[in-house]
This record gives sequence, structure tokens and C-alpha cells, in this order.
Amino acid sequence: MSNEYSDSNQVTEGRKVMKNFKLNTLLQLGLVFILTACGANGGAGAPMAANSDPLPSWNDGSTKKSIVSFVEMVTTEGAPGYVPADQRIATFDNDGTLWSEQPMYFQLAFAMDRVKALAPKHPEWKTKQPFASVLKGDMKGVAASGEKGILQLVAATHAGMTTEEFEKTVREWITTARHPKTGMLYTEMVYQPMLELLTYLRANGFKTFIVSGGGIEFMRPWTEKVYGIPPEQVVGSNVKLKFEMRDGIPTLKKLPEIALLDDKEGKPIGIQMYIGQRPIFAAGNSDGDQQMLQYTTIARDNADTLPRFGLIVHHTDSEREWAYDRKSPMGKLDKALDEASKRGWTVVDMKNDWSKVYPAAPLKSSQG
Amino acid sequence: MSNEYSDSNQVTEGRKVMKNFKLNTLLQLGLVFILTACGANGGAGAPMAANSDPLPSWNDGSTKKSIVSFVEMVTTEGAPGYVPADQRIATFDNDGTLWSEQPMYFQLAFAMDRVKALAPKHPEWKTKQPFASVLKGDMKGVAASGEKGILQLVAATHAGMTTEEFEKTVREWITTARHPKTGMLYTEMVYQPMLELLTYLRANGFKTFIVSGGGIEFMRPWTEKVYGIPPEQVVGSNVKLKFEMRDGIPTLKKLPEIALLDDKEGKPIGIQMYIGQRPIFAAGNSDGDQQMLQYTTIARDNADTLPRFGLIVHHTDSEREWAYDRKSPMGKLDKALDEASKRGWTVVDMKNDWSKVYPAAPLKSSQG
Repeated sequence: MSNEYSDSNQVTEGRKVMKNFKLNTLLQLGLVFILTACGANGGAGAPMAANSDPLPSWNDGSTKKSIVSFVEMVTTEGAPGYVPADQRIATFDNDGTLWSEQPMYFQLAFAMDRVKALAPKHPEWKTKQPFASVLKGDMKGVAASGEKGILQLVAATHAGMTTEEFEKTVREWITTARHPKTGMLYTEMVYQPMLELLTYLRANGFKTFIVSGGGIEFMRPWTEKVYGIPPEQVVGSNVKLKFEMRDGIPTLKKLPEIALLDDKEGKPIGIQMYIGQRPIFAAGNSDGDQQMLQYTTIARDNADTLPRFGLIVHHTDSEREWAYDRKSPMGKLDKALDEASKRGWTVVDMKNDWSKVYPAAPLKSSQG
Repeated sequence: MSNEYSDSNQVTEGRKVMKNFKLNTLLQLGLVFILTACGANGGAGAPMAANSDPLPSWNDGSTKKSIVSFVEMVTTEGAPGYVPADQRIATFDNDGTLWSEQPMYFQLAFAMDRVKALAPKHPEWKTKQPFASVLKGDMKGVAASGEKGILQLVAATHAGMTTEEFEKTVREWITTARHPKTGMLYTEMVYQPMLELLTYLRANGFKTFIVSGGGIEFMRPWTEKVYGIPPEQVVGSNVKLKFEMRDGIPTLKKLPEIALLDDKEGKPIGIQMYIGQRPIFAAGNSDGDQQMLQYTTIARDNADTLPRFGLIVHHTDSEREWAYDRKSPMGKLDKALDEASKRGWTVVDMKNDWSKVYPAAPLKSSQG
């Protein structure tokens, strides 16, 4: 410590006053700074300041209240529902839960753009379905090819590349391609209320994971920047890989064989494989998330007393986003909606519960 | 801010002085507190205090120096070798790298204990290899059954259970079973210098992962307590799982089919599947780690300029642990040792580089 002022009376007087006044203020400021700094680094357990709303894009009501009550319960040390930070695992579906999924899964738009880019090397695609429909821009034909057709598109455009080559094509596409209806980048079509929820959970010591039917390597290049979720906390469908030395460089090649289909029953399997712990919080928006919500919320036995939370995003807003549920070809929400009331899962009514949908307004209208 | 003292001359004088002196000191103290507090929560990037030795069980010498130099380089902001915290990924083999593996992989000891426990339900094992050898205590017979026999033992004792039942048997065994030579719990046979290295890396913003040929579900129940590595940062071999509703309870059953054999070529595959980023630091002790070390340290192209570190634990200490390398049936270190000098991997000479092996002394002699 510097002695420059140590003999000054001013300092002595000042010190006495400081002892009563400024020291406390500065320490308090310091404490706020510590909490903020740790929170920004994903540090565990720093509570939010009491008088700021951590979920400003959620309208007041029972949905918001149930979320906040749950988080307050599991973080209140000594209270009955307290959950130690290392067990605060939260899993989120991606398509339709963290970002939009209409009129088709965004990864399918990526695969279709790849088909168009690769078509000159594949003259046979002109007459082979579902490729022919993609090249003609015939969305109904693509849809008619069903799940099998979509898997064919994904396999043909994703397999055979190295993981690095694939990552490069994703990075290029995700930073340039725009949604046909809104004119926005796809990563701008994430839900502002869900971004707030992710941040709120992390600020309260949760680890947040994506558990999506989408491709793990399609999501990882951008999830940290967009959601604050690092690559190793992304679980998704993936293909088998092969290790190869190419000109002395170790590479991993994507094979045309599914290793994990991370949807429906595949979601609890993905959770166990990748996370190794049952979540206490899970959020989804479709029947593809039903098993994840069951696995998360249904108590094993009488000793299994941790509080648990299931959240379903119900797409009810045809003006700001889309309205669909029981009969939607994408993101069908039917059985899981029926089960929600039985299990006490919280259903988000997008139209009424969210004051804002996307972080910024669309460039074009999202209707139609 | 309170106005209570706002008209006081003392305060005015004091403030002037504080502006020059105390404010800075307090802010500096606050900064130290922030770094400490964040570090304790596993926050990224908090440097170690300069004058405490973060690796006290490592003898001074070129090995320790190379580790410390690397960590200082990648954490020095603005310097040429700086690596942002989100890319500071470190992967560690487990058997022979973080804990001992002689006279057999500890998981094999677990599987053999399970065979003995389950034998009454399997009368056919009395005459069927490798089970018969296990039941007779004939270790040579077990060894003669080779890798195939070991996989048979593991499959027979691990498959068919739910993940929860399996976890329970691991927890019971790991807290009670003792090593035949040392009399120690297996989790006491972890390497003190490697525990220090894990802590040192995390204190410098690294995320630490296990990437082991051992079973992922055999390790996860105890790695957080023993190594400070949470379940989702453990990568290991694993079998396929099946989701089943049993009496209304969602369960996951272990199937007798390998999903990932996380050894040799399987290690870079496991890294990409689970972590999704190339490490900048990898540690192993055998040829099973060769591909992980290659994948971690070999530059892709001229643009791939991040500093990278390969570490090999060489078992040279027949008194305090075991001495083995090129012809060992467990943890064979041959090709990877030859490659180490070519690639600049750091080879730990256990006998000379480590002042301590285990956190506590063995109950019995480890020799023989």
C-alpha cells in the first residue's frame, strides 16, 4: 500500500468518516459487482437483485408466477424445496421452444439450401424424390416424402463431410440465410422470453442444456453466442463418426448412419448419455418432448422428493408468430398437452404470456 | 446514495483524499475478492496468487516447468499464445492417468465382484469362460480370455439393469471395496499431482473433462467428489439404452450392445460427440490415448495456431506405484511413447517428477 498520504491529517479525518460511511457503500457496490461478475461467468447460485424483474418479457400472471416460485423455492437454502446447485439441471428443446420452427424446421431449410448448392454434382437428384421436389421448390412434395424423406435429405447433405467442413457450412449459412416470411436471420427468430428464462436460471445456479431432435453439429456452432449455451451442453441427434488420418491430419468423417435420434424416447436417452443426471426442469413444445417431460417430472419413488418443473410452450399467437398444436405437421402438440394438466406441467400461452416474441421486430410480416 | 453526511466539511475533504487514495485501494481489494469468489465457484479465468505453488506435489524440473509455462502462456491476455477461456478445454484419460490401473483396471475388479455376487443366479457360469476363472479366482485364466472376455464380463454384469440400479451398485462398491495390494479404497488411489493439475487448470479458466475407455456410468457416480469433474463432463464407453415405462415410472435399461467404445480411435470420436470442441490440453498414459493426443495437438492447417499441450504419464515408480510401459497387458505405452518426442508431448517420469503419488500413504505396501 502506498504511504504517500500517510502523514496527512486530512487522511486521518477522512478515514474516520469513511469508516462509518463510504466503506460500507463501497463494499456494497463491490458485492453487487461480485454477483454481477460471477453471474456473467455462469457462476453458481448468485441471486438476482430483489427489485429488478428478471423476466421483463413475461406478462404477469400464473405462468410467470409458477416459474419464479419454483426458482425461489429451489434456491432458498434451508427451505423444504431446496436443491443443491449441482443438481439444478435444466433442459430445453430447441425447435419451437427456443426459436421458431415454421413453416419448416430451420435445419430442413439448411438441408434444402445444401441440396441446391450440391445439385450440379448430383444430376440424378433431378428425378429422385425428395430431391426433385426440393430443386423445383415444391414444398408439398417435400412434405409428402415424410420423415423418411427428410432424413434422406439430411443424410445426403450432411454425411461424408468431415466435422470441420460441416461446421464451416453451418457457420456460413446461419450468418447469411434469411427466413422467407420474416426476412430475419434465423438466429434472430429466437424467443426473447426464453432467452430471459435461460439467463434467469443460470443466474440462480442452474446449468442449462439443449436437448433437441435437431442435429447436434447443426446447433453447436452458434448456441453459445445466441443462447449462452456452450457446445458441450448441447445434446442433439447425431450420426456415427469415423476417425481418419488424412495427409497426417486427424479428421472425423460423418457417416450416413444415425448414432442417436434425440427425439421422443431418444430424449431421456440423450439426457442420460450426455448429462448423466435427471433434470429438475425441462421445457418443450411438442409430443417429441413428452418423454423428456415425463422423465424429468415423474417421481421414481417416495424418496424422490426434489421439486420438478415441466414447461410447454403452446404456440397460440398467429399474429406475432404462428398458432398450431394438435394437427401440425411440425411440432405437433397433442398427447403432451393432454398430459400437462395431469402432471401439473406449466403451459405457456404465447399470445397472452409473452409481451414480446423476438428480440427485434421482423423485417416483414410474419403472417401468412 | 444516502445524503446523511452530504453537508459535512469532513466528508468533502475526505472525499478529495479518497479519490486519490482509498478508493483505488478498496477497488483493488474488491477485485481480489471478486477473483477469489468467482474462482471458488469454478468461474473462468481467475489467476492463481503469484507466490503460492499450485503444484506442490510436482518436483521442480522440466516437466513441471512446461506445464506452468503453457498455462501462463494461454492465460496471458494480449500475448501471442493467449487462448480465450471458452476454448480452454482439457481432457484426461482416467485409468493410469488419474488413478492406478494395476494389477487390473479397477472396473474389471468391480465386474469380477459383480460376477461373484450374481453367480448363484447363473449356475452355467461354473463351466463357462471367463466366468469360471473369475469364480475360481484364476486371474491368469481371466487374462487369457483377452479383451473379448473382459467385454463379456462387463456386458453380463452391467446389461439388463436400469441406469439407476447400476448406479446404486457402483456407489456401494466404490465406497467399500478395497484394493488387494494397498488395502486402500480405489478412490484413494488417485494421483495427488494430477488432482493438483486439475485444480490448477480449472483455476485458470479451463474446463476439465474425463475421456476414458472405462464405462461412463461406472465413473459418473464419484468423479465430482473425487476429481471435481461433474457427470456431464465425463466421457466414457457406454452401451445403448432403452426407454421403458415400468409401472408408470420412466426408466432407462442398459442393453448388451456397445454405443461407444471410447478408446483409441474412439477417443477423438467421444470428444467430438460429447464436447464438440478440440481440446488444447490432453493427458493420457497409454497407446489407447495416442489418437486423443494426436487429435488434440496436431495442427489442422496454417491458420490453426492455438498452443496445444500433450501429456503422458509414464509409470516408472515400482516402489510407490508400478513400473510398466511397452509390454504391459494393462495400459501398454509403446507407440505413443515413440511419438511423444516427435510431437513435443511432455512425458511425466512418475518416479522423479512426483514428490507424492497418492493423497495418503497406502495401508499395505504397494509392491509385489
